[in-house]
Amino acid sequence: MRAVDVIVKKRGGGALTRDEIGFFVDGVTSGGVPDYQAAALLMAILLRGMTPAETTALTDAMVHSGVRVDLRDIPGSKVDKHSTGGVGDKTSLILAPLAVACGLVVPMMSGRGLGHTGGTLDKLESIPGFRVGLSLEEMKAALRAVGCAMIGQTSQIAPADKKLYALRDVTGTVESIPLISASIMSKKIAEGIDALVLDVKTGSGAFMKTEAASRRLAESLVSIGNASGVLTEAVITDMDVPLGRAVGNALEVVECIEVLKGRGPRDLTDVSVELTARMLVVGGAATTRAAAETRVRDAIKSGDGLERFRRIIEHQGGDPRVLDDYGRLPSAPGRHAISAPRGGFVTYIDAELVGRASVLLGAGRDTVDAAVDPAVGIMIVATEGDAVGAGDVVFEIHYRDRARLSQAVEMLSRAMTVGVTPPARRRLIVGEVR
Amino acid sequence: MRAVDVIVKKRGGGALTRDEIGFFVDGVTSGGVPDYQAAALLMAILLRGMTPAETTALTDAMVHSGVRVDLRDIPGSKVDKHSTGGVGDKTSLILAPLAVACGLVVPMMSGRGLGHTGGTLDKLESIPGFRVGLSLEEMKAALRAVGCAMIGQTSQIAPADKKLYALRDVTGTVESIPLISASIMSKKIAEGIDALVLDVKTGSGAFMKTEAASRRLAESLVSIGNASGVLTEAVITDMDVPLGRAVGNALEVVECIEVLKGRGPRDLTDVSVELTARMLVVGGAATTRAAAETRVRDAIKSGDGLERFRRIIEHQGGDPRVLDDYGRLPSAPGRHAISAPRGGFVTYIDAELVGRASVLLGAGRDTVDAAVDPAVGIMIVATEGDAVGAGDVVFEIHYRDRARLSQAVEMLSRAMTVGVTPPARRRLIVGEVR
Repeated sequence: MRAVDVIVKKRGGGALTRDEIGFFVDGVTSGGVPDYQAAALLMAILLRGMTPAETTALTDAMVHSGVRVDLRDIPGSKVDKHSTGGVGDKTSLILAPLAVACGLVVPMMSGRGLGHTGGTLDKLESIPGFRVGLSLEEMKAALRAVGCAMIGQTSQIAPADKKLYALRDVTGTVESIPLISASIMSKKIAEGIDALVLDVKTGSGAFMKTEAASRRLAESLVSIGNASGVLTEAVITDMDVPLGRAVGNALEVVECIEVLKGRGPRDLTDVSVELTARMLVVGGAATTRAAAETRVRDAIKSGDGLERFRRIIEHQGGDPRVLDDYGRLPSAPGRHAISAPRGGFVTYIDAELVGRASVLLGAGRDTVDAAVDPAVGIMIVATEGDAVGAGDVVFEIHYRDRARLSQAVEMLSRAMTVGVTPPARRRLIVGEVR
Repeated sequence: MRAVDVIVKKRGGGALTRDEIGFFVDGVTSGGVPDYQAAALLMAILLRGMTPAETTALTDAMVHSGVRVDLRDIPGSKVDKHSTGGVGDKTSLILAPLAVACGLVVPMMSGRGLGHTGGTLDKLESIPGFRVGLSLEEMKAALRAVGCAMIGQTSQIAPADKKLYALRDVTGTVESIPLISASIMSKKIAEGIDALVLDVKTGSGAFMKTEAASRRLAESLVSIGNASGVLTEAVITDMDVPLGRAVGNALEVVECIEVLKGRGPRDLTDVSVELTARMLVVGGAATTRAAAETRVRDAIKSGDGLERFRRIIEHQGGDPRVLDDYGRLPSAPGRHAISAPRGGFVTYIDAELVGRASVLLGAGRDTVDAAVDPAVGIMIVATEGDAVGAGDVVFEIHYRDRARLSQAVEMLSRAMTVGVTPPARRRLIVGEVR
């Protein structure tokens, strides 16, 4: 088989066979197919598309470029959640302990923040001592001990994805539903899970800006999961405005703990409960959504979720005292307030601009190798729908570097809209794909 | 400027600016834009296309990656011809001396054969001693001395094309009219010519299989030439059947000499005269096509064309005695005849199959680095339209290696069709673009 023939076939709109896809993925992994041929094929895939069968075969080949973890010797239903990424999107830290409290095992491999969206690993690492770099053996030990492991992707998991993602990033081939789907699902399938709930974000702060595009992605992801033996469903949730009130790593950890204590923001609590309840159903730990939701809310009320989070933090080397003493988390020295220019109602908070402002402050990164500052970020004091008087604080900026502040201030001033009439109530759950 | 932004723009169907195209071509030439980004952009160009303005800007940037030869100090009108390539397509060796005989200066940079199509340089090199690797200074000296230089592309001419072509070859991005056009025209414009006649082949043995595709390519080429200050016109000529009777380097040289002696095959003579006459008109050496054709045919009758070819050969180190003694050209030891299976008329000779058979024999190459055997090839003893009796020879194979013969025989047997009624007379000149 010659790579150029595979490229020409896809260029012409043909459907690639499982063998052709396997040849390509193996070649990318081994170096037998050079980057320039891979780049040409990626562009042809982006512009010509892939059938569901091709996308599943691509995912499968990427899974088999590394190990598919075998968790069969660990009792219980292994269920994960994956979000396509958003601003203030911190549900993993809430739903993982809640799902464990409700009887699931949660082997969660997450990523770091990139661009204007945050990442679970960065948030966890703002907890002093928390170690995300567990080996697969350590992951299994954590699952046995506390029912959950929250770790980074190891080099054994879908190494083809790592190479392909780096290449897509520099060749303008990121925005392809088949390629995005295979990238996400190869890592999730390789985790060895039984079931998966996907949180596909839609709106300004999401990768997919429209509901239609988000639905196409959700359908592609769910189709691959189910075809690969992982029971999968997707929820499409709003990301036009940030989720919750905190954006920035340590600030978001505090907000998660508040949700587990039953006093977090309503939007964040509702989405976290929704996702956890779906995990229980798809993982077979509850028979109906209503029953599942009751159990999840009970796990918050009883404090069991918080207790599970304590054990997870402790097991992964973190300082569990942060749960009771937020002063143990990193804190930025500077505070700056942005106020409403007039009285009325906050009618919009642009998630993408808030996300980009947080990157400017140092909470996120624009390139994969950059470091993040765990302490800096933005508190959304008044969010969409809130009534404000002229001069009331809308954003409280936690900053370290004054030079970085002014750009963030300019961006956040554009991120808020204050009007005279309250906005329509926003739907948090936009749709589902099963 | 970032390469990835240029890629994303073209991916979305946008028209690139002159600056963006220049940035890309300069980057490819210098290595500042890595191959994988170039490959992604090439695929996006192939699938999204380019406007005429973009194609001209691409050509211009490729010309300026090297030198544009200045021939203003050489008196006379400098005119070249370029063919898109065919089987038995040997007109360059005929029309260059004829054009010189009619008063033009012909600075001709040609290529080598690749795939099933032959190349002028390979044919010339079958003449003992003929040296195609002249420097630009030597080229100018040849133009002054004998009015013509027939040479290979030097490294100073459009180096970006050399890099891009090598990349296109392995990334499935050859078949793009803008990319083909820029590749051809950058080299021709860099020669420093005043005018150009293009022979765009169409049919089985051509790169463009349909008349519509050939016309699109011709229009693109002519548009670039005229926009770049080179008076350009194109003839679309048939390449469903091989041109003339000889396919293979030394065999074709003999046939060219026969045409210059006034006793060559009619199709080859007619196409050569047509192209030369157009060179005279576009180069200002004749005012009407009819007058030009008369002069060209006179240059054959008078032997002036043959005499010019003698001087060209001599000036470039070749043995001019081949003109009178074909035994001085390389000759293959083996002969094998393929005969008509029944009596009737030859109704079709498939140019592509004949070309591929000649490559199998060693007359051509499948990879750019391969060597060719100047002696081997195929004589088409009975061509389309000829009456044959059962057992009459249709192809005479000149071979060296018996192991290579059998595959060629099988292919040539499929290349001929013998029927009971004579085929319709084929149009040699399918169309023109001015």
